[in-house]
Amino acid sequence: MREFELIDVLRTRLAARRDDTRLGIGDDTAILAPSPQTELLVTTDTLIIDRHFPGDTTAFDIGYKAVAVNLSDIAAMGGAPAWLTISLAAPALEPDWADAFVDGLQAACAAYPGPDPIDIVGGDTTRADQLMITVTAIGHVASGRAIRRSGARAGDLIAVTGTLGDAAAGLARWPQREPCASETDPLIRRLVRPDLRDGRALIGRASAALDVSDGFLADLAHILTASNVGARVAVDDLPGAHALAAAAPDLATFRRWQATGGDDYELCLTAPAAQIGPLREALGCPLTVVGEITAELGLMCLDRHGQCLAADMPTRAGWDHFA
Amino acid sequence: MREFELIDVLRTRLAARRDDTRLGIGDDTAILAPSPQTELLVTTDTLIIDRHFPGDTTAFDIGYKAVAVNLSDIAAMGGAPAWLTISLAAPALEPDWADAFVDGLQAACAAYPGPDPIDIVGGDTTRADQLMITVTAIGHVASGRAIRRSGARAGDLIAVTGTLGDAAAGLARWPQREPCASETDPLIRRLVRPDLRDGRALIGRASAALDVSDGFLADLAHILTASNVGARVAVDDLPGAHALAAAAPDLATFRRWQATGGDDYELCLTAPAAQIGPLREALGCPLTVVGEITAELGLMCLDRHGQCLAADMPTRAGWDHFA
Repeated sequence: MREFELIDVLRTRLAARRDDTRLGIGDDTAILAPSPQTELLVTTDTLIIDRHFPGDTTAFDIGYKAVAVNLSDIAAMGGAPAWLTISLAAPALEPDWADAFVDGLQAACAAYPGPDPIDIVGGDTTRADQLMITVTAIGHVASGRAIRRSGARAGDLIAVTGTLGDAAAGLARWPQREPCASETDPLIRRLVRPDLRDGRALIGRASAALDVSDGFLADLAHILTASNVGARVAVDDLPGAHALAAAAPDLATFRRWQATGGDDYELCLTAPAAQIGPLREALGCPLTVVGEITAELGLMCLDRHGQCLAADMPTRAGWDHFA
Repeated sequence: MREFELIDVLRTRLAARRDDTRLGIGDDTAILAPSPQTELLVTTDTLIIDRHFPGDTTAFDIGYKAVAVNLSDIAAMGGAPAWLTISLAAPALEPDWADAFVDGLQAACAAYPGPDPIDIVGGDTTRADQLMITVTAIGHVASGRAIRRSGARAGDLIAVTGTLGDAAAGLARWPQREPCASETDPLIRRLVRPDLRDGRALIGRASAALDVSDGFLADLAHILTASNVGARVAVDDLPGAHALAAAAPDLATFRRWQATGGDDYELCLTAPAAQIGPLREALGCPLTVVGEITAELGLMCLDRHGQCLAADMPTRAGWDHFA
């Protein structure tokens, strides 16, 4: 059974029945309304050793990443993260490891842009053969204002924050990395400590958004499916770090890292052209326009000469853990 | 490092900093106030194959138990569960298995006493060497009314719902069980499908409560520590099912299953004597008085002749996954 097949089954079978469930399974987060004036965003993500991070990742970086990938989901809905629970399953518990892990959890919370602290309010520890961390994040959003995947409209521009492909390049370089590489190597650093964006900047400006976790094209396809639209993407406009260009052995690898690499945790959003400037200012980070939403379905990738690139991209789930 | 040492470190290091975090790590659930009028309860629990359930447990029963143990935490705070997220890590995904697992998730939600449905609003699936399920549950509670572990007062009675020890006896019998034992054998059934109690009955009546997961005495000790009180427990008054008495080879085993067996997921509560009758009526299930809270610290276990039993019971964490 493929992962997306299971998710489809779950989405159908687990359709929301409560009046105060505004949105159930299928977006970056659920939307819950515990009171008429309050909406919350809830998301959960599991990280497993040797699958979501290399086995020799430091405890600090594991803690950081486990928190960051969840905060990123809250941001992609336009929310402000408030609370986390942490479930840790591990073969053993070493005090030094646990201490550095907690440092990493807290560092990711502190790195989130915004005025309010984020509290870790619960969790669970248990023994398992493999190191595995499940984080659940809960955030606030102004009622009715959360940015869903389904809001993209023909004519909207497609934009991404920061740069794409760094994490994929960092992973490729991992086995040969220097000691303390996550402190010194920008690509390695992006792999283990994703940059966090302030999702509140999206409210009232973006029409749809998600965080780039599976790979830019695969994630964009989620927006297209949910919004029932298509897109043209200018592959050569995808924002890349200088370090990425230096690390790529050839153009094909460079494009592959950027377009399908995954693990970037940048925000991919759609918005009317007039909102791109205000979004860039509110986000306070680079925001690059990389394409346009079309009424015609399908995802077309063009190079700088307007040539259509072979669409050997996944059109559905980007990364299937059970494929 | 022992599990309770880690939890102590976490409790200290992760002290709440937000005004809207009413209670952080250390009780059955956290208490969060997303708006001045609203309080939510949040808890998370991980179940791992061969550790929290035998490897040949059915998919239905695994799903049921993973949900039930979390709903039980919400109930123990006096809350009404509303939403769940489910994180599933498994070596493979078989459609039949997944279908029965979802049946089990939904059956546990449906079995929770109360008028409102419980929605599963998110989750995550990933491949892992071991089957592992992490559930996060979110519930409602009237503002300021949640039942904490710290409210027990000298003179309060100690009471437990249902019967104790069935799950431990079921686990002892597991290797020799009949096919479909979870349908037909009451002890096996209690092991995999814990009875769920309506936590709202505790509000305004119980002074402290928790769910019996590690074992009755170990869990009661959590209340004593949090409330800074002691207790006298009449071991022979602990409620036992007829099936349990029939299954126990001797009195010592019977007492051990009841007092330290764990996995019961019954509610252990303290309350003034005058509240026991109203509590029994509101809960709609058997509620048995088994002891009394004392100003003198310590946990004293007495048999029917008033003899003090050797206190070879854990005084702190009952079940340490890393011991």
